[in-house]
Amino acid sequence: MSVTTVFPQHVIAKKRDGGVLSRDEIAGFVRGATDGSWADYQLSAMLMAIVWRGMTPQETAHYTEAMMHSGVVADLSSVKQPKADKHSTGGVGDKVSLHLAPMVAACGVAVPMISGRGLGHTGGTLDKLEAIPGFRVNLPLAEYRAELERIGLSLIGQTADLAPADKKLYALRDVTGTVESIPLICGSILSKKLAEGIDVLVLDVKFGRGAFMKDKAKARELAQALVSVATQMGKPTRAVMTAMEQPLGRAVGNALEVVESIECLKGRGPEDTMAVTYALGEQMLVLTGAAKTTAEARERLEQSISRGTALQKMRELVAMQGGDAVVVDEPSRLPRARLRVPLAAPRAGFVADVDAMAVALAALRLGAGRAKAEDSVDHAVGVSDLVKIGEPVAAGAPLCVVHANDEKALAEANAMLTKAIAIGSNAVAAPRLVDEIIGA
Amino acid sequence: MSVTTVFPQHVIAKKRDGGVLSRDEIAGFVRGATDGSWADYQLSAMLMAIVWRGMTPQETAHYTEAMMHSGVVADLSSVKQPKADKHSTGGVGDKVSLHLAPMVAACGVAVPMISGRGLGHTGGTLDKLEAIPGFRVNLPLAEYRAELERIGLSLIGQTADLAPADKKLYALRDVTGTVESIPLICGSILSKKLAEGIDVLVLDVKFGRGAFMKDKAKARELAQALVSVATQMGKPTRAVMTAMEQPLGRAVGNALEVVESIECLKGRGPEDTMAVTYALGEQMLVLTGAAKTTAEARERLEQSISRGTALQKMRELVAMQGGDAVVVDEPSRLPRARLRVPLAAPRAGFVADVDAMAVALAALRLGAGRAKAEDSVDHAVGVSDLVKIGEPVAAGAPLCVVHANDEKALAEANAMLTKAIAIGSNAVAAPRLVDEIIGA
Repeated sequence: MSVTTVFPQHVIAKKRDGGVLSRDEIAGFVRGATDGSWADYQLSAMLMAIVWRGMTPQETAHYTEAMMHSGVVADLSSVKQPKADKHSTGGVGDKVSLHLAPMVAACGVAVPMISGRGLGHTGGTLDKLEAIPGFRVNLPLAEYRAELERIGLSLIGQTADLAPADKKLYALRDVTGTVESIPLICGSILSKKLAEGIDVLVLDVKFGRGAFMKDKAKARELAQALVSVATQMGKPTRAVMTAMEQPLGRAVGNALEVVESIECLKGRGPEDTMAVTYALGEQMLVLTGAAKTTAEARERLEQSISRGTALQKMRELVAMQGGDAVVVDEPSRLPRARLRVPLAAPRAGFVADVDAMAVALAALRLGAGRAKAEDSVDHAVGVSDLVKIGEPVAAGAPLCVVHANDEKALAEANAMLTKAIAIGSNAVAAPRLVDEIIGA
Repeated sequence: MSVTTVFPQHVIAKKRDGGVLSRDEIAGFVRGATDGSWADYQLSAMLMAIVWRGMTPQETAHYTEAMMHSGVVADLSSVKQPKADKHSTGGVGDKVSLHLAPMVAACGVAVPMISGRGLGHTGGTLDKLEAIPGFRVNLPLAEYRAELERIGLSLIGQTADLAPADKKLYALRDVTGTVESIPLICGSILSKKLAEGIDVLVLDVKFGRGAFMKDKAKARELAQALVSVATQMGKPTRAVMTAMEQPLGRAVGNALEVVESIECLKGRGPEDTMAVTYALGEQMLVLTGAAKTTAEARERLEQSISRGTALQKMRELVAMQGGDAVVVDEPSRLPRARLRVPLAAPRAGFVADVDAMAVALAALRLGAGRAKAEDSVDHAVGVSDLVKIGEPVAAGAPLCVVHANDEKALAEANAMLTKAIAIGSNAVAAPRLVDEIIGA
């Protein structure tokens, strides 16, 4: 062993003492996660030291870069359109990717989107797509590229050869109390997104009680770090900060959200969902140069709906990935729950509150999500026709419809939802949703 | 799995966020280290969170108690004398245990001493004892107890059944950058010492460049934590703070230090070594009630030398543990190095400095210590007849004698020692050695 050997414990001790790690030291740590040259107990001690001491923007960029290059980076040079992706930090009822991706693709910008599954209170795009009979999310990178060449759109799951260091470190973080760290979150999100082969990235960073980051200042810090690191790495990036206090739209649950997304593509989407959709889509078109201004971008996105081109893109996407494309025109072909029961308003008044986290936990109780990574989901169950804050309700009128496959779960979800939805005597204004755009 | 299951990651997150862990949570962590119910990567993340957030005195006491009870606790109720042990945080040339233990035993206080091996720049009592031909340090607890019953003295190595959680955690700390933490050091030292079966404990907490804790304020903090936790656990404890700037005594190296210890027992010990020896021994006799005052204790310890009772105890100890007891009277039977070369003073003057750390590294180069835990030591090599700060030297007179078994190592050690020993033109005062007594 040469005298210049760098032992993991020395790199850990440097970070522990608040030092700034060099590019080589960070690369050694990430390589250690991939090839096993760092023991798991050394990786986790380092992760905790990073949670403690943080990382400079430069260190975070080195970390992200090393994670991105721990596996293959998709080469999409054969896809001629500009390529943009969108990533959300996760919310309740957030089905925006499902309709935003075909809308943007219909405007001539390719959307190479690699997504994850839901865990805990947040849903996952893959689970929603899998509610469509036959839809395959596990495509190899070659098929993903071919689909992008052909229709300018592909929505798949993370492949084993993409950012393997992140897979390893994410699994460790989950069981060692080292999830909550802005540089670590930053590296995890961006290493995967930048390995997709994109040109630009738009982020939906959520804050509020239904978001991963409850605190707005903390979410803003994450947004700034994400934008700064991705930009440093040569990918123009903006972050849209959006509130996550009540669920987005009126549906929570996999098939129910697919139905709502198809409604969005048909011009009948809920107002709040469309506000977030347009805010993100505008940035995707402007950043890639497909539109000169957000006003122009907005017009083109609206046209993708009014002219039916986005809905047609959705049909193509479902067909290309093996799904039943007729679903787009006949959503009744999606899985349906056995019990569909309206929840009656206990009194007349105005909707004062709909607690996103409580609704998410009710949906989880119905079987719509996963408490643990190995759980399976019931695509049919969830909540639809949910009232929004500020709306008037009559006594006995439905606050939502609960979709369940189990009487006991239904009763418990009803009790949870009754608590989650507050009725007041006076009209309150709907809360502001799109808060700020970082990086513009 | 019941809903009340406490997952390791939740306990880790609590400490990460600066929370105070309950007795049960700490017990679960320590049990996890012993029975494997916590993964190594969870243990190391927790250790780093403790380095970060620290522990309250109450948490440290719970931690120490759980570690102590992770294995057997020696039952020495059959040993009728009061039982005292001494522990040093480790220094250069610190052979005090070797002669202090028989001195105290000769005064009627039993000394059940379980020691460690040297690592890095500090030597270990076990390595020094093993320089004596035939001396066995690996005795089972039953033999240890029998020896204590018979001669009131036993010096052995840590057995596998003593504080196994500490063994596990110490090995992890060593490779994860989590050694430097006062509560963790406290738990590690005290869990082993309190499992020995002692009534009282005296600590030699060293500070200065040759010590583990270089910074005096930090060492004082450790001393206070050790005294406070051990006292809370029902064991009267005091800590003597001693400077470790130059080596203790005139010899560094295993057999060479045994020779010096025997000289101490014969009343010819170096002044500094005896000052530390008496300071520690006085506290051991006073804490056990064997002496009423430190003055009385001092008198009895001096008598143990002048009357030859301590030297006789040493003969008994060596014989009981299978060693060649004639060594005590004929130290020439100890291993001797092939090369014994004086290092000449380059000029006349006064010894201005002897850098303990540099001398330790020279001894390590000669083979006296271990760079890694699996290295073997050469008992014969080291440095003897070392000058002390403040002493006058003539040009060409020996600054020390270097004992080597290898010409190349000798040349390198000579170069290191020449740098370590500074000669000035003016007389300087010898530095103060015994600084303060904590807990008195």
